[in-house]
Amino acid sequence: METVVIAQNILANNDTVAREIRQRLAARGIRALNVMSSPGAGKTTLLERTIARLRGRVAIGVIEGDLETSADGDRIEAAGARTVQINTRGTCHLEAHMVRTALEHLALADIDLLVIENVGNLVCPAGWNLGEDARVVLASTTEGDDKPAKYPGMFAVAEAMVVNKIDLLPYVDYDVEKVRRQALAINPRLRIFEVSCRTGAGLDAWCEWLAAFAGATPVSGLSEGR
Amino acid sequence: METVVIAQNILANNDTVAREIRQRLAARGIRALNVMSSPGAGKTTLLERTIARLRGRVAIGVIEGDLETSADGDRIEAAGARTVQINTRGTCHLEAHMVRTALEHLALADIDLLVIENVGNLVCPAGWNLGEDARVVLASTTEGDDKPAKYPGMFAVAEAMVVNKIDLLPYVDYDVEKVRRQALAINPRLRIFEVSCRTGAGLDAWCEWLAAFAGATPVSGLSEGR
Repeated sequence: METVVIAQNILANNDTVAREIRQRLAARGIRALNVMSSPGAGKTTLLERTIARLRGRVAIGVIEGDLETSADGDRIEAAGARTVQINTRGTCHLEAHMVRTALEHLALADIDLLVIENVGNLVCPAGWNLGEDARVVLASTTEGDDKPAKYPGMFAVAEAMVVNKIDLLPYVDYDVEKVRRQALAINPRLRIFEVSCRTGAGLDAWCEWLAAFAGATPVSGLSEGR
Repeated sequence: METVVIAQNILANNDTVAREIRQRLAARGIRALNVMSSPGAGKTTLLERTIARLRGRVAIGVIEGDLETSADGDRIEAAGARTVQINTRGTCHLEAHMVRTALEHLALADIDLLVIENVGNLVCPAGWNLGEDARVVLASTTEGDDKPAKYPGMFAVAEAMVVNKIDLLPYVDYDVEKVRRQALAINPRLRIFEVSCRTGAGLDAWCEWLAAFAGATPVSGLSEGR
């Protein structure tokens, strides 16, 4: 796995670079997903489980965004996906020029789905278009059930919300229905998945949604929607 | 409680405004603490518990920073502290000019300690001086034990780290000693407290540190350091 340090902010217009990325990926039939959440909501673990479950069906390439360390990139590579680690050295979100640079280190001919794991931050990443086709926000049952109301920007831009760590519900004060209501009030078209990466609960539904997003044939052989 | 919406970025030099705030508070003998963490690590709950325990010993005023809603300010006011809520409307951190505006709504003659609860974000708030005397970062046992290494900037600027939610240790993969080592490698002078706001474990030590910071007489009547 290669680690790319991209500390400097380049002054190119972000949306222009994002458009280039989208066109480049579309030309190869690659779909791209931008995964965002607070630090520690479980983005990397969800990706590890997802890569394992979709092995042989969807070829996943991953760009890992972190301020520092290649710890997450190492985990994702060990899970079996082609991976490039970006270290932003203090920048609180990924920008399109960082993704463009990372793509130079990824063999695009080998992948169907590009997953971009953003820096752990429930605010800033929502404002930066990376050329992705969809955005997923993770919520966690341990971070309080007021997050959509308090950080509405992130939930407004997402196509899907994954509520992670549902195995911990007996031990925390977290009302999943309240979170659903808050999130849907901000974004009525949001797809919502409840999962536990620890027990595996709910991961089948999430993985089928992601496989369909990536254009893979459903496992059952039925066409989508039946 | 008053809610102040401060959406616009004012172009005054942040450090100049921070210096004014520090001088103004110092002239009144008020100490100021900037509390930072990821969303959902438990800043507001820690403040609720702290206000209850220090009632009658330390008069605490609180500035609550959130993108949206006055939910946290309402909780802190119900806990018994004078409170001003700032809504940043999308800005991912507090800036000194926001604190200066909030201070106009707080009766400074009535407080010994000003606690500023920053926006939930483990990256950006670390870069903004608010005129505080010390910074505290919360870590949570549910957010993974790699956070100091992955977000070193926040841990480098803090005087104290509170590891919260230790009641959940039996249910999560979290090595407290690993987090201690990571944090102390970044910042050897860091004071570390392990607490559960749910059970109350560890809160006495934290509150005594905070009371001493605020200049209150120790409960035991012994002078500091004996």
